[in-house]
Amino acid sequence: MSKTDGRLLRGARSRQTILKHAVDLASHDGLFGLSFGRLASDLEVGKSSVQTLFGSKQKLLLETIETAAAAFQDAVVKPALQAPRGLTRLRAMIDAWIVYAEEPLFYGGCFWAANLADFDDRPGPVHDALFRHRRAWRDGLTAEVRHAIDSGDLTDRDPDLTSFQLEAVLLATNTALRLGEKGAVWRARYAIDALLKP
Amino acid sequence: MSKTDGRLLRGARSRQTILKHAVDLASHDGLFGLSFGRLASDLEVGKSSVQTLFGSKQKLLLETIETAAAAFQDAVVKPALQAPRGLTRLRAMIDAWIVYAEEPLFYGGCFWAANLADFDDRPGPVHDALFRHRRAWRDGLTAEVRHAIDSGDLTDRDPDLTSFQLEAVLLATNTALRLGEKGAVWRARYAIDALLKP
Repeated sequence: MSKTDGRLLRGARSRQTILKHAVDLASHDGLFGLSFGRLASDLEVGKSSVQTLFGSKQKLLLETIETAAAAFQDAVVKPALQAPRGLTRLRAMIDAWIVYAEEPLFYGGCFWAANLADFDDRPGPVHDALFRHRRAWRDGLTAEVRHAIDSGDLTDRDPDLTSFQLEAVLLATNTALRLGEKGAVWRARYAIDALLKP
Repeated sequence: MSKTDGRLLRGARSRQTILKHAVDLASHDGLFGLSFGRLASDLEVGKSSVQTLFGSKQKLLLETIETAAAAFQDAVVKPALQAPRGLTRLRAMIDAWIVYAEEPLFYGGCFWAANLADFDDRPGPVHDALFRHRRAWRDGLTAEVRHAIDSGDLTDRDPDLTSFQLEAVLLATNTALRLGEKGAVWRARYAIDALLKP
């Protein structure tokens, strides 16, 4: 391996290490809490090298969002894609989401719940990236509801409305878990079952 | 009116003006976004006079929360208390909440939704105040569900579970409204009706 290759590889590794920490921080303190200085001091590296690696604060935020989205896909979406389309996959997605909220993938709980409210009224690339990923998740839920209806697993209903109701329960469950409320997962499962009664 | 009375009155008025603006800012940027400097420059007064009025940042945050809670009580809870206990009052509370989210009482939408996620893992007086008020709202919903069951308006069910489901729909509706999603209120009403079927 050439010297340049070694440098590139180390650079890629540092990038991943920094972004992983950035996602944890942003799930806890929100993306507003991210700064080159904070990342550098937490990871005991020079602030200027972190800055050089990412260029601008906005680029750092956008890469942090993509890192969170990839981890979310790997933990919640991809495993569910193994299940057959329709109600089985829908349930697999929801179960994986509840585990994701229960045993946080990110230090501060749901990355999206922590950041969507902060950016709802701040137009720009960070807002757009956050909402694109959230929309993709919601659209995925809607698509599986539609398949479950088409295959006869669910009676006819408005798929978008059902996915709205499902997402509402999931987000409220994340909040309840973050607040340490007893019975949060039990309530989630009951509410989900009520929505998915054939 | 004595000179001292005049000063006290002006002091009380400034306090209310500043707190009203603080609530708007915190509903938009979160309580983290609040600072004596920001309030002073927005309201074109001296930073030191704002600081003197409130003493510490923590006191400012706590008074901001109480101001938001009082406005929320006036807009959402008190009008509903005119309705008879049970399903009628429960529906009045929910309708008032939807109006509160639809035509924001606060500049940045729901004050609680904007701040709960930021403070869920920050123990201290600010966290406690936020969660006490949110708990009171949820407990109010639960109490009315219980009354609706006792009076026979709703079939027997777990009141706490039903209030969890109702709150989930309301918070998801606030998010949908903040994102400008079409049909948000229609979906909310449908989902609420489904939960409150006798």
